[in-house]
Amino acid sequence: MTSIKATNITWHEGHVDRGDRQKLLKQEGALIWFTGLSGSGKSTIAFTLEHALVQRGHMAYALDGDNIRFGLNKNLGFSAEDRTENIRRIAEVGKLYADTGVITMTSFISPYRADRDAARETIGAGDFFEIFVDTPLEVCEERDPKGLYKKARAGEIKGFTGIDDPYEAPEKPELVIDTSKVSPQEASISIVEMLVKAGKIPALSD
Amino acid sequence: MTSIKATNITWHEGHVDRGDRQKLLKQEGALIWFTGLSGSGKSTIAFTLEHALVQRGHMAYALDGDNIRFGLNKNLGFSAEDRTENIRRIAEVGKLYADTGVITMTSFISPYRADRDAARETIGAGDFFEIFVDTPLEVCEERDPKGLYKKARAGEIKGFTGIDDPYEAPEKPELVIDTSKVSPQEASISIVEMLVKAGKIPALSD
Repeated sequence: MTSIKATNITWHEGHVDRGDRQKLLKQEGALIWFTGLSGSGKSTIAFTLEHALVQRGHMAYALDGDNIRFGLNKNLGFSAEDRTENIRRIAEVGKLYADTGVITMTSFISPYRADRDAARETIGAGDFFEIFVDTPLEVCEERDPKGLYKKARAGEIKGFTGIDDPYEAPEKPELVIDTSKVSPQEASISIVEMLVKAGKIPALSD
Repeated sequence: MTSIKATNITWHEGHVDRGDRQKLLKQEGALIWFTGLSGSGKSTIAFTLEHALVQRGHMAYALDGDNIRFGLNKNLGFSAEDRTENIRRIAEVGKLYADTGVITMTSFISPYRADRDAARETIGAGDFFEIFVDTPLEVCEERDPKGLYKKARAGEIKGFTGIDDPYEAPEKPELVIDTSKVSPQEASISIVEMLVKAGKIPALSD
């Protein structure tokens, strides 16, 4: 290990570890994995939470269809094989972000239990928080923010989760949220409490 | 936009933008893309730089073979097609990190000009810094830290960059470093100066 002084810096060769960055950020890396039907409220909660965390001075980042499906995973379709690879890549990126010390939210339907379990294994149990956004299908379909349920019911979209493709509910999620009963803000508060309890961020101070 | 008060937090729906995170971090996102032969010193410089930046309180993260080839890109080989996809995914992850506000270093041979140019396009010119680690082949081969040149010369590895596969040197890199002439620390200082000049991090204070 050599080092020289340049202005106020000591220059070391060798790796920075996760702990160094976490100390800097005063938080620990975590991946908050939202799963649920289209229109269940995953992204709305994720962005509400991201906003609150950043406002508190935390590093948080939301991964969703907008920044993943049009970027890293733009060469993937919606076959079962591609869906699995989609989730695999998101989990691997989530693992990098956790190592970076960032609190990351992923908002993808992620309908298959095996894919989510593989994601949990990739990230590591202590860093992985599965949030089941368990909003009833009728409510999601009533909202239909992108008009996708209408198209699925009309047979214009095939293999739509909840209509003609299965959604496999989590068996042991870290948290269950039904957005027909709680607001995105109330949901976010529950998640912040969960993160505090897990030691990922310090307790709220008044 | 609704908001409620929970302890000291205002909860907003809606996106956090890159500027909010950058303000928090007191830096701007950037991707420092090292390219050069095996053994040229890319990773050593990247880790030295990462250490120095984190020590100064910056968020920096190094992507290299260890965390990419065994994770996100573990389903890719070394065919021309797979090498291109390898670089494409790394660039897309770099883009996410830049949006997160992190200064990211990538240490991959990335021998093909077209792939690096595509990466620059993905990231956006203002955030992309191509560093050509232009250490002479003889020096790299003399170092041979992983014994790969020996194997390539013996014909045990095919398509090895610099031996029987081309390395296409950058035409307009942001910086050229020859580690047979400068130390990783000196190289890192040049890169920090480049980042300061580009407005990505504040000037060093004594």
